Order: sequence, then C-alpha cells, then structure tokens
Amino acid sequence: MKVQIWSDIVCPFCYIGKRRYEAALQQFDHKDDIEMEFKSFQLDPNAEKGTDKDLHQSLATKYGVSYEEGKAMNDRMTEQAKEVGLDYHLDHAIPTNTEDAHRLSYYAKQHGKMNQMMERIMHAYFTESLDVGDHETLVKLAGEVGLDQEDTRQILSDGAFKQEVQVDQQQAAQIGVQGVPFFVFNQKYAVSGAQPTETFLEVLEKVWKEENEQSPIQMINNAGEQCTDDNCDI
Amino acid sequence: MKVQIWSDIVCPFCYIGKRRYEAALQQFDHKDDIEMEFKSFQLDPNAEKGTDKDLHQSLATKYGVSYEEGKAMNDRMTEQAKEVGLDYHLDHAIPTNTEDAHRLSYYAKQHGKMNQMMERIMHAYFTESLDVGDHETLVKLAGEVGLDQEDTRQILSDGAFKQEVQVDQQQAAQIGVQGVPFFVFNQKYAVSGAQPTETFLEVLEKVWKEENEQSPIQMINNAGEQCTDDNCDI
Repeated sequence: MKVQIWSDIVCPFCYIGKRRYEAALQQFDHKDDIEMEFKSFQLDPNAEKGTDKDLHQSLATKYGVSYEEGKAMNDRMTEQAKEVGLDYHLDHAIPTNTEDAHRLSYYAKQHGKMNQMMERIMHAYFTESLDVGDHETLVKLAGEVGLDQEDTRQILSDGAFKQEVQVDQQQAAQIGVQGVPFFVFNQKYAVSGAQPTETFLEVLEKVWKEENEQSPIQMINNAGEQCTDDNCDI
Repeated sequence: MKVQIWSDIVCPFCYIGKRRYEAALQQFDHKDDIEMEFKSFQLDPNAEKGTDKDLHQSLATKYGVSYEEGKAMNDRMTEQAKEVGLDYHLDHAIPTNTEDAHRLSYYAKQHGKMNQMMERIMHAYFTESLDVGDHETLVKLAGEVGLDQEDTRQILSDGAFKQEVQVDQQQAAQIGVQGVPFFVFNQKYAVSGAQPTETFLEVLEKVWKEENEQSPIQMINNAGEQCTDDNCDI
C-alpha cells in the first residue's frame, strides 16, 4: 500500500498534517506494509532566497489587515501546531525558495532517508528558524540524518534532481492539486489538507480493506458447452 | 494478466474450448502479457485404468438410448471438434483415470512446459487413441515435449504432485465450478464451458481495459486546512 504526500517545506499545514497522518499510522494495524513517499510541491516557485521577510507582515499585507492582526493569524497557526506537539516560531521563520530543499529530499530518497530528511528540514524551518534555502545549512541537516555532506554539497551545487521536483509538480497539476498537504492513497483516494487523524485512519482502513478483500469471481456466462462428472452437454 | 483454465484430459469440450480460447488469444493485441495456467480437474476421480470401455456404449447407457444413438451423439461432438481443427477418434479413445496425466502436467510446469504437455496428452487421447493412463505412454509423451524421461518415470511412480492436483480441485469446488472447461481471468471474471472465440476475446479485452485504465483518484474530502500559492486557510 502506497501513500504519496505532496507538501512544501514552508507550508505550516503540511507539517501539522504530517503529524496527524503519522498519528493515524500509529493506530493502523498494517502500518508496516505502507510505503510512504514525499512528493515535492513549491507553493511559490518564484520565491526569493535571502530575504528578511516578516511572516506577520506578509499575512497583513496579503489580507489588508494590520500587523497585529497578521500576527494574530500566525499565533492561531502556532496554537494548532502545539496541539500536535509541534513548536512553531513563525516570528523568526526565514521564508525562502524551497527547490533546493526538495532536491535534497530526493537525494535522501536514494538513501532511504526521504522521510527523515523532510522531517529534519521542516523542523529546522518551523522550530529552529534556520535558513533552509542556504546550501551550507542544508548540508549540515543532511549530515545529521546520516547523509554524506560532501556529496550533498555537490548535488546542491550541480542542480541534481531538478527534474524529479518538476515532475512531482506536473503530476500535482494533472491530479488537480489546489493546495498542500495533499495525500494520495494507492492512486485511488485523495485527502486534501491537514485533516483530522480520524480521517486519515478511516482512509487507511478503507483502502486496506478494498485491497485485501477477495472480491467474488464474476461469471460472464451462465450456460456453456461443458463436461460435468455426469455428462457432456452436447 | 493471468488466465487459469480448469480442464480434464478426457473432456471433449475442454480440448475444443482450448482451441477457441487460443483463437481468441491470437486476435488479442496483448497476448504476450498473458500468463496461462492449467488447473487440474478430474471429471471422475474414481475412474479405473485399463478398462476397455466403449465411449458410444457409455453414452448410450447413461442416457438409456441405443448404441447407435450414443454413437450419433459422439459423432456430433466429433463434428464440433473438426470445426476448430481437431481430429477426434472417439470410437477408439481409451477412457482412463487422469490423475497421473495431471500430475505429469505439474511436473511439466516446473520446466515451463505445462501448456505443451497438456496439448500433447489431449492430442494423444482424442486423436491418437493412446492410453494416457499408462505410465510408459506418458513417459514417451513427456520425452516428446522435451522433458527428461527417467525423471518423468520417477515422478509418475512415486506419486509426486498429488497435492497440487488435489488443491486445484478444492479450489474449483470453492469457486463453484460445476463443469469444465472453466476459465478464470485475473481472479475476477469466469467463463464456463467451451464458449465461442468471440466471448473469450471480449473477456480478454474487458479485463485488459479494466486493469490498464487509470481510474480517476477519488477525493475523500472537499475542504481542508491547506496552503495554496496564495495563502493558508486558517
């Protein structure tokens, strides 16, 4: 059973949704049979690096409200994060372009560490207020999950895995993904957004049941030229 | 795509059905992607070997008709066989217990020759009037499809593959097979009897289409806490 999760590093609901999904997984009897795959999604592919944008001000500008009201919205997000055990510090978060972080997640995937890498980068962004667009920061984080730092520096500088990141976004467009997080179960069912843990659990159970239920064989015809132990119907 | 065919060696409709199925396969664009598997079915597991039963008389006795009428029924079967290019000689066929022939088909399966072996034994029974219950006859037929004759003699005498033959018949009972031939496509659809070639072709096309059609991903929920390129809905 395969679960694909489109998300962006700097998307606050993605990290919250990841935690809710993980909580569902813990309650799911067949969690060891699930293959989880992160898919890249850039909320803003044109985002700049190295800016000193203030997230409260960004929200305030977007909604045409005061700085205080922008901060209040971020505070509500921080409260939601706390409910799933995450410690957001949106005051000091450093918004950036996430393409390199996504490319790094694909490098980590080659080594079976995609989930750890995504987790590490999201924690760095939301909790530690690190600049996850900075190559040396990413190299350090990669080292922490056990990846080779020299190789990481190389793939970050030579543009490796650009195509994988693009393909993920094209797939998202084809499926009709409007926002992230976006979860696809066995190419069959989709859940959009950071839904409650119970929703994820219900879908996991549903897909599992459908995949493992032997549906009865359907007869195409009722009569035929056949032989039984008694006779051949000629 | 997998097709399983339950049949018995001495079942006249099974050989005819095999030909009609094969004709459908020839017209099927994806025939190279089909895995075909014969499953054992004994119309009469208690049949004796070494009898000199006359098939016309057997039919006559079964239906309480004259010998001539029994022969006429078999002649009609021979006509049907001719229509698919088979040359039946039911006058001289030697009815027997088919368990050993089925066991041999499983030995052939180990060497990737199950289809050739079944074909060779059915031809021997229906066209050449050979005693396919006789071990030395089976050894000779096995040699003709490229199997080791000494090994064949050994597995015939030591009772190898009895369990495989039994399991097939238990499966048939579970599925509700009333007679043979009986075709199961991808554990999903079943065709009973020697249906017309068009029927087999239709089912092959239907199953192929269903297996290869990407069904659209179904959304479980409509709204969610998510981030779009524009904003996060808090």
